[in-house]
Amino acid sequence: MKQTFIDYVKKMQNYSEALSVIYWDMRTGAPRKGLPQRAEVIGTLSADLFALQTSDELGTILQQLEPEKLDFVTRRLYEDVKESYDESKKIPADEFKAYTILKAKSEAAWEEAKAKSDYQIFLPYLKEVIDYQKKFVQYWGIKNGSAYNTLLDKYEPEMTTDVLDTLFGELKATIVPLVKAIQASPNKPDTTILFQHFPKAGQREASLEFLKQLGYDFEAGRLDETVHPFMIGLNSGDIRVTTKYDETDFRSALFGTIHECGHALYEQNIDPQLNGLPLSKGASMGIHESQSLFYENFIGRNENFWTHNFNILQKYSPTQFANVDVEDFLKAINYSEPSFIRIEADELTYPLHIMIRYEIEREIFNGDLAAEDLPNVWNDKYEQYLGIRPENDAQGILQDTHWSGGSFGYFPSYALGFMYAAQWKHAMMQDIPNFDDLCLSGNLTPIHEWLTTKVHQFGALKKPYELIQEGTGQALSAKYLTDYLQQKYKKLYQL
Amino acid sequence: MKQTFIDYVKKMQNYSEALSVIYWDMRTGAPRKGLPQRAEVIGTLSADLFALQTSDELGTILQQLEPEKLDFVTRRLYEDVKESYDESKKIPADEFKAYTILKAKSEAAWEEAKAKSDYQIFLPYLKEVIDYQKKFVQYWGIKNGSAYNTLLDKYEPEMTTDVLDTLFGELKATIVPLVKAIQASPNKPDTTILFQHFPKAGQREASLEFLKQLGYDFEAGRLDETVHPFMIGLNSGDIRVTTKYDETDFRSALFGTIHECGHALYEQNIDPQLNGLPLSKGASMGIHESQSLFYENFIGRNENFWTHNFNILQKYSPTQFANVDVEDFLKAINYSEPSFIRIEADELTYPLHIMIRYEIEREIFNGDLAAEDLPNVWNDKYEQYLGIRPENDAQGILQDTHWSGGSFGYFPSYALGFMYAAQWKHAMMQDIPNFDDLCLSGNLTPIHEWLTTKVHQFGALKKPYELIQEGTGQALSAKYLTDYLQQKYKKLYQL
Repeated sequence: MKQTFIDYVKKMQNYSEALSVIYWDMRTGAPRKGLPQRAEVIGTLSADLFALQTSDELGTILQQLEPEKLDFVTRRLYEDVKESYDESKKIPADEFKAYTILKAKSEAAWEEAKAKSDYQIFLPYLKEVIDYQKKFVQYWGIKNGSAYNTLLDKYEPEMTTDVLDTLFGELKATIVPLVKAIQASPNKPDTTILFQHFPKAGQREASLEFLKQLGYDFEAGRLDETVHPFMIGLNSGDIRVTTKYDETDFRSALFGTIHECGHALYEQNIDPQLNGLPLSKGASMGIHESQSLFYENFIGRNENFWTHNFNILQKYSPTQFANVDVEDFLKAINYSEPSFIRIEADELTYPLHIMIRYEIEREIFNGDLAAEDLPNVWNDKYEQYLGIRPENDAQGILQDTHWSGGSFGYFPSYALGFMYAAQWKHAMMQDIPNFDDLCLSGNLTPIHEWLTTKVHQFGALKKPYELIQEGTGQALSAKYLTDYLQQKYKKLYQL
Repeated sequence: MKQTFIDYVKKMQNYSEALSVIYWDMRTGAPRKGLPQRAEVIGTLSADLFALQTSDELGTILQQLEPEKLDFVTRRLYEDVKESYDESKKIPADEFKAYTILKAKSEAAWEEAKAKSDYQIFLPYLKEVIDYQKKFVQYWGIKNGSAYNTLLDKYEPEMTTDVLDTLFGELKATIVPLVKAIQASPNKPDTTILFQHFPKAGQREASLEFLKQLGYDFEAGRLDETVHPFMIGLNSGDIRVTTKYDETDFRSALFGTIHECGHALYEQNIDPQLNGLPLSKGASMGIHESQSLFYENFIGRNENFWTHNFNILQKYSPTQFANVDVEDFLKAINYSEPSFIRIEADELTYPLHIMIRYEIEREIFNGDLAAEDLPNVWNDKYEQYLGIRPENDAQGILQDTHWSGGSFGYFPSYALGFMYAAQWKHAMMQDIPNFDDLCLSGNLTPIHEWLTTKVHQFGALKKPYELIQEGTGQALSAKYLTDYLQQKYKKLYQL
């Protein structure tokens, strides 16, 4: 029965992988005219995969397995598959189908609404998506005491609003005054070098060099160009990254590549015994983001890392960087200023963008915030936290796609990831006190190995709260991130 | 029932398309370490597709359809699907599975044998593959009077050895003396410009320009790099080409791109009513090759075409071409000399490589030529037709992969394609007497439209013999190709 179960799971995984290849292809240059027919292919494979995921055959297999008699890996696999199976079975098939169709329409409506900056186009769909999500929560069952906790749990197992309110409260108490102090500070870095012309071909070469130095395995991955950078794990030996080249702002490709590399290193270093199983993935969205942000912020913005690597940028864009000091470069790339668009926000203000979304989501599901009121609430919160008010819905409530596809509970992962990352960094410094020397020498192997030992190897074998507790000796805390931000920005802006 | 049938066929087609995306990806840079797991994905999807192709459900649908009551397109679809269904059902499932496993082993053995230039490594597998093919022919039934005709029919419907013997006989009677006369001729073109350094990036840009000028639709395709160039139709709006860049011989990318473009134009211009159906493909291998060879040889080696386009090469490789006359360039690219490797052979000697393979295949299946004797027979024929004898099996019998995968009957398509192409060209000249002026002006639209009207639009709605009869007013003849070769090479070498 155990082998039957594993074979069945691998078959589902094979369907997922085929869909992932198609998805990757669609986002890296699949020709426009082939997309309608490709959507049919996705429809066929998704329907057949869903049939496998919810079949009576799988139900019988799960029923006949005796989890207490299974080895550790198979038991975790059993739990993982059973959880998805139960969740899928709880939703009536006709409602799931209607919701799938609604999502497609809602995503299209969001695109149009964003393009026209007109929330009213999106509103009726968003309302319906929210209604479905509320109904689904009832089907799934209230977890940890509230409807929103049920949604949070899907992205960050066992995470609750109680915990988030505390963590985000501490973070806000640090960031908001820091942002104000920076705005009041007379010390503004010169950022003109950021916006000079850096040819795409050179940016690509530089991206390849950084990936190599960070330990990305090109025999188990590749780098491509996209509009929105992403990492995708097709299988354990094929973990791809993409980046976006902006010739008038190299930061997009540079930090985008380093960020996606962090995600990729996670999946390239999962224990090979999980190959071909759905456990060969990250423990949670938050933990995944902790790896990308660790590389982006704690390595990619590290002073010593740039002392070692600035020559790479000088090589590929000499007129831009030849006469620039690393110090000035560091000041420029760490420049902080409130802005409207989350994905373009700097490290310091970014968590505020997340908290705004979190508070809104919480009130939609646990309170009675209505979809009609979201633009106003959104704008008020931007004014309150960031001191700026969006001028239209495109640069406000309509900027992100998540809600159009029903992904409520996902946003907090981005800020959780940053907190996890700071806590990993702090713990790592106990074991690797010469962290900065390693960055200076370009030998990142010990850092890489530490993360593999504490995080990567386990894939989804452990829950996020287990990983952080076992890896750092305590539960997730906001302290390490607030300490880092305080120290860094006080120094940068001489506050 | 008709709609049930079409939906069923489209579902199979969706599986094929998913497999094609994966196949394209594997040949355009999929990372090495992900391949073993990707093979599992292919295994799963292929098995599920095969189950669809041979299911009792499909059998019942086919039985209940009344073909005489169907519209033309659906009736052709019915015939196409029924033929595959019957063929698949005729082979016992266990034998088909054993053969599939054998093929994988045989292909691996061929690779090793070729690398070591040792036919003995490949021999036992080849023998088994031939035995299976002979057995399958019995299951399928003798078509048109001989075992080999059954195999020919799979690639070129209704083609027979009688027809081929005549066509190839005429072709041989023209080519062999021409080749000898050229070898004896004191007029040898200077080919040194062919082998100068042409940077890859420039070759890619040039390839893109040629594709554009030839009418390739980039909204329904893309160009990528591979080891062995190919065209692949994922769906009617996604027809991709690949090419190979050799920095010391630009002909590989140049003529490879133009060749694959010919294949792609065919599939990009099939009637949209066939979208999503298996009829949205070429009529046969020979007709497909006629389109690639039409573009490669009748446009890509046309004097006026180069008068118009030589500046593209001069732009991307100025030191190589700046001081070269178009006339000398044409002489160099049309240089002919007997050589060992089919895929590197020139236009004139190429058909001889095909005839050798054809004669061997015919004797294996209709006569009693044994696998053990193939290397000797092969080498004797090279000596007889081309005047050169391979020094080892790697440059002889082991050079092509086709037989390792059981593709007997395929090779003739390559030479048939050239004959079809010459016949299309002759017929086109009646309708478009200013063909050369069009090449000179760079306006290839009338040529393109002629081929769409006569060939492309029909996809697999018509049989190859119908296309050539209706499009040129007569059955396939060797005359137009022999005329072309005579005239061209006598002039080039002043014979």
